[in-house]
Amino acid sequence: MAPTNERHMNDTSSKASASPAEPKGKRPPVLVDGVTLNGPTLDIREAESFLRDAMPIIMEEAVWKATDVKEKVCEWRSPEQLKDLLDLELREGGEAHPQILQRCRDAIRYSVKTGHPLFFNQLYAGMDPYSLVGRFITEAINPSLYTYEVAPVFLLTEEAVLQKMIEIIGWQEGGDGIFSPGGSVSNMYAVNVARYHHCPDVKVLGLSALPRLVMFTSQECHYSVAKAAAFLGIGTNNVYVIPSDKRGKMIPAEFEKQVQRAKDEGALPFMVNATAGTTVLGAFDPLEEIADICERHNLWMHVDVTNSVAWNPHKMLMAGLQCCAFMVRDKTNLLQRCHSAQASYLFQQDKFYDVSYDTGDKSIQCSRKPDAFKFWLMWKAIGTKGLEERVDRALAMARYLAEEIKKRDGFRLVMEPEYTNVCFWYIPPSLRDMADGPDVCTTPYLQVAPVVKERMMKKGSMMVGYQPHGDKANFFRQIIISPQVSREDMDFLLDQIHSLGMDL
Amino acid sequence: MAPTNERHMNDTSSKASASPAEPKGKRPPVLVDGVTLNGPTLDIREAESFLRDAMPIIMEEAVWKATDVKEKVCEWRSPEQLKDLLDLELREGGEAHPQILQRCRDAIRYSVKTGHPLFFNQLYAGMDPYSLVGRFITEAINPSLYTYEVAPVFLLTEEAVLQKMIEIIGWQEGGDGIFSPGGSVSNMYAVNVARYHHCPDVKVLGLSALPRLVMFTSQECHYSVAKAAAFLGIGTNNVYVIPSDKRGKMIPAEFEKQVQRAKDEGALPFMVNATAGTTVLGAFDPLEEIADICERHNLWMHVDVTNSVAWNPHKMLMAGLQCCAFMVRDKTNLLQRCHSAQASYLFQQDKFYDVSYDTGDKSIQCSRKPDAFKFWLMWKAIGTKGLEERVDRALAMARYLAEEIKKRDGFRLVMEPEYTNVCFWYIPPSLRDMADGPDVCTTPYLQVAPVVKERMMKKGSMMVGYQPHGDKANFFRQIIISPQVSREDMDFLLDQIHSLGMDL
Repeated sequence: MAPTNERHMNDTSSKASASPAEPKGKRPPVLVDGVTLNGPTLDIREAESFLRDAMPIIMEEAVWKATDVKEKVCEWRSPEQLKDLLDLELREGGEAHPQILQRCRDAIRYSVKTGHPLFFNQLYAGMDPYSLVGRFITEAINPSLYTYEVAPVFLLTEEAVLQKMIEIIGWQEGGDGIFSPGGSVSNMYAVNVARYHHCPDVKVLGLSALPRLVMFTSQECHYSVAKAAAFLGIGTNNVYVIPSDKRGKMIPAEFEKQVQRAKDEGALPFMVNATAGTTVLGAFDPLEEIADICERHNLWMHVDVTNSVAWNPHKMLMAGLQCCAFMVRDKTNLLQRCHSAQASYLFQQDKFYDVSYDTGDKSIQCSRKPDAFKFWLMWKAIGTKGLEERVDRALAMARYLAEEIKKRDGFRLVMEPEYTNVCFWYIPPSLRDMADGPDVCTTPYLQVAPVVKERMMKKGSMMVGYQPHGDKANFFRQIIISPQVSREDMDFLLDQIHSLGMDL
Repeated sequence: MAPTNERHMNDTSSKASASPAEPKGKRPPVLVDGVTLNGPTLDIREAESFLRDAMPIIMEEAVWKATDVKEKVCEWRSPEQLKDLLDLELREGGEAHPQILQRCRDAIRYSVKTGHPLFFNQLYAGMDPYSLVGRFITEAINPSLYTYEVAPVFLLTEEAVLQKMIEIIGWQEGGDGIFSPGGSVSNMYAVNVARYHHCPDVKVLGLSALPRLVMFTSQECHYSVAKAAAFLGIGTNNVYVIPSDKRGKMIPAEFEKQVQRAKDEGALPFMVNATAGTTVLGAFDPLEEIADICERHNLWMHVDVTNSVAWNPHKMLMAGLQCCAFMVRDKTNLLQRCHSAQASYLFQQDKFYDVSYDTGDKSIQCSRKPDAFKFWLMWKAIGTKGLEERVDRALAMARYLAEEIKKRDGFRLVMEPEYTNVCFWYIPPSLRDMADGPDVCTTPYLQVAPVVKERMMKKGSMMVGYQPHGDKANFFRQIIISPQVSREDMDFLLDQIHSLGMDL
């Protein structure tokens, strides 16, 4: 029989089956365990018609309306109300297409529009059309990045993006990296690589065979550092927390003191997590001074031009969730040595191509989404220059907002912004007449931001985050990212907060 | 000023800026650090036109052609060729839309079509239109599942799916769960929850304060168990590997021996990982007997109706990568206690709604994709009955294939399939005339599957995995999942392998 690219549809030799064969169309059906096996059971024309109906809904409701400044950011419903509206129960029977299409509309309607120009609630925002197309492509193709044979395009684009990111970091001798399902997981990679670098035995012997390991981070660090310490068996008590200064930057002298303390206790200090852009204040730790201390004490430095970096293009660069690279300054195949398990059913060494392209074993995952591709496509479309312009504009916008806050009655900056985080209080008129301005730690003051937030969400007009911080009462944290955001939105933000909170 | 839902576009009070103001349209531009801040810089009409051009390409090339049995499964290029074809370099300037659209076409063209009916290479396959629409929705909305306020619909659908899955598992007293970015991560959750259950101190004190912990798994388990042990600081040497029988099932008596060995050594045995459907052979460990041993020795049992389960609907149930639930038989908020870090900027306790819906702190992640939604939507569309029918049909199809293999010259089953993994050798005529059939361990035999695989990939006709296993030379592992797969495809598969390998 001649090999063809098509399924051999001319094969009429109906191989015998024990089942009773009733003719159905051209060929007798093959029945096994009561199941007919002739032909596919997924009706591809029905699938096509469903997708044809669903796509305009998605484009109209989840893309265009969801990014239109004249539409609501959210359509608030309480959990109880929303449960009723969505009819969440999963039943024995299925539902017809019109009903499923209505479910799609409802899911979109009651979802928060994170691409809306007035969504400032998290450290990500906005909609980039190139990244979105990249995401639609990868969802349709449904690849998994274990091996080159299964995901050739996506492994190569991941490699290209990582190399470019490493070039931008400035590691002239090169490096290695892997995309992970989030910055938290990237930080876990850093902890694991750092301890493996110090004690390669940890992979096989575990921590019980080692001295107590101690790592360092600032009090302003992301909470994933504590999660990493707990998850990786280090223990949160063995994360020595370094005080930060008033601007949120790690104090180098305090760091060195804590290293000495760990050594005096007989523990093994092995790494520091430095932060370039803290979660709340957007502060940058003094990386050079920290690097000097690391060199003196032989510590691994993470988030730095020294050893390893966690960089999340899904935030400031708008690549869409999830898009997170972990990169390591290394040419010794450290990622592979540290994480490999050499599964023979995936990473066969007798393949017909160069298996060094099968990079999946560098990961702690098996199945892995192609998160670099959307970033690559967006980067191709707008260029490095386009990415730079977006960041520069967001920084300028943050500067504008900070200046406006200083000019307006009833607004007060927590501190001058260093990055795109603008942290500020709103002070309603009733609290403004305290001598020398309100004490921002007072109990009535603590409630202003939560109430304003509740009102803005119920109205659906915008979303911005708030939190207390150290001895400071709840303040707003405004993050600017999207190129859809304009100066007018900054003015609107302040006007809205005032109109929502002036009666408090 | 009256609050509106619209951005306040009538505000003509141009707040002073230090920058030189040149009139541009109605309002003077605001310049900060050389950046004009008036109006958005993302041209939404241009974005719309790009998406309008891109979507038909995606639907045609990445959905319909990619699932059409008459098209190729893959368009093989070596890494070097593909690098040239894709022009991967990221440059300073961007590219025009026609060029980006061509890049989309190329990316799709050279990608492996995992939804193709003849893609049998991994433990996932097929295309479900409802799941795909769910994925397009979540990519467009771009949510992150930290808190109810940011992802109300997606947190509620996750909860509904988890509750239904727990009901199907049969935990009548209920349970808890979280979707994770993969089965490997779910297995890490299991290890962490199990050790926390035994020694809650591990979260703060770390493993260095505990006796040596030992866990158990069978020799047939997925490689993520070793990765978990390394990553979580247990150490791979402290994973005691239990021999399996010839069918790939853990031998209970050997398990109990190993538990005793760990105890005799003064270590603390804390968990067993049992497998329901091993990666290569599709074998099921004897769960009941393992559960009895766990009860006797106070061990946590994972993948079982006892303590915790990792269940990946992205595999057999076709929910699309990634869709992985980790579930735990617990009503004491164990997931939260074990993993929480209580970040005050996300999990504020003074919110205006019931913050028990903010389930993000159960996760080891911060940003987290809404992987349950697509599964929920698909489940709604085809019902529990539809899911069951798909699984039943895949099992019947595997049974059909196994019977065909027995009938055909030159094919030999490795063993009777227990699940949808059908493992078999192809024996070319030149090797068939050895006395009593070929010794499948011989060196010439070892090369048959890799060469047949190379030929099928270069032809693009189909994809099926192979691997050696124990003392057995390379054999094919056929996995049946998609309802698009028919009896004719099984016949084609065997015909193709024969026509590709008969000259060897």
